[in-house]
Amino acid sequence: MRQLHTAFVITSRGKGLYDFTDEVARWLAVHRAREGLLTLFVRHTSASLLIQENADADVRGDLERFLSRLVPEGDALYRHTLEGADDMPAHVRAALTQTHLSIPVRDGALVLGTWQGIYLFEHRQVGHRREVAAHFLGD
Amino acid sequence: MRQLHTAFVITSRGKGLYDFTDEVARWLAVHRAREGLLTLFVRHTSASLLIQENADADVRGDLERFLSRLVPEGDALYRHTLEGADDMPAHVRAALTQTHLSIPVRDGALVLGTWQGIYLFEHRQVGHRREVAAHFLGD
Amino acid sequence: MRQLHTAFVITSRGKGLYDFTDEVARWLAVHRAREGLLTLFVRHTSASLLIQENADADVRGDLERFLSRLVPEGDALYRHTLEGADDMPAHVRAALTQTHLSIPVRDGALVLGTWQGIYLFEHRQVGHRREVAAHFLGD
Repeated sequence: MRQLHTAFVITSRGKGLYDFTDEVARWLAVHRAREGLLTLFVRHTSASLLIQENADADVRGDLERFLSRLVPEGDALYRHTLEGADDMPAHVRAALTQTHLSIPVRDGALVLGTWQGIYLFEHRQVGHRREVAAHFLGD
Repeated sequence: MRQLHTAFVITSRGKGLYDFTDEVARWLAVHRAREGLLTLFVRHTSASLLIQENADADVRGDLERFLSRLVPEGDALYRHTLEGADDMPAHVRAALTQTHLSIPVRDGALVLGTWQGIYLFEHRQVGHRREVAAHFLGD
Repeated sequence: MRQLHTAFVITSRGKGLYDFTDEVARWLAVHRAREGLLTLFVRHTSASLLIQENADADVRGDLERFLSRLVPEGDALYRHTLEGADDMPAHVRAALTQTHLSIPVRDGALVLGTWQGIYLFEHRQVGHRREVAAHFLGD
């Protein structure tokens, strides 16, 4: 049994979903990870992680628009407004999605379904450099 | 330290929560899992996983109705409509709940609270065959 | 490779976020946990866990108010009302946030970002004694 650590850096270009499934799979392949548990953890509170459909790009667009409407900017409810109109909504959106993902690895592959991809979900209007810590535990 | 893999298959009969706590507990018992970490991962993007109250069935009904209202079918916002009026809402509902669960195992039992059950959450109107990958790491 | 188990008890004073990052870090330090995976699991369905910003307290206040408005008490939709007007909203809020968190440990520290704290999220009006099971697997 062994452990691997790394960090994936994803440079976002504003609100939306960024697929980094291939980077994760490549890292596991390079280290010949066969059986174990992969954990991803985003080190920010205005971005999050999500498993979502990787087939029709409209799914990601619809999801982004749904969240933008559910958690609107300029809501009179917010007191935390000094960091920009999109900052507090970003924290709420991150709370409603995932900060971490754990995915079993079996026979050398992530057990993702056919249509599942791993996404960084950027919640700020402006692009950011996002860091996702990765940890593998297994053989 | 050892690893176990399996897949639980849950056949849903449309939208709602399906308890499979007993199947998980039985699998751990058969393999005499004593101490470790169980991870469950649903291999779909229109179903999800949830820990929820297992006492009053009204809780699950209310949760289902709440999500059906929060994420309505036929919303003019959606572009992804070809797979049915319930497909895009299903992706949103999955994004707002969980794709995976990790639960510690201690003294041969999941550390669930008295009123906690493990549920598959089906988000499509029609029943589906859902696969949940399971992984145990420990002793 | 070794395993550690404990339970953190957090006494809440009603709805809101309670930081227990320091208790977790102290426990890992006392046991000299260097490399591995920490998993936290809340043993209740009307409280949850969340990684959130630890800088401006207004973020937590805004998040609390956002969820109170999104999931209102006294909603005509609820049938599960016998345990109090805040009980069913608490279950919905727990479903929309997290029951468990997994955080990698590297070089003796949780890989949290600078502004990230670990919170218990109490969803009931009255204070409760909440139990969070903790598990560490690693070196």
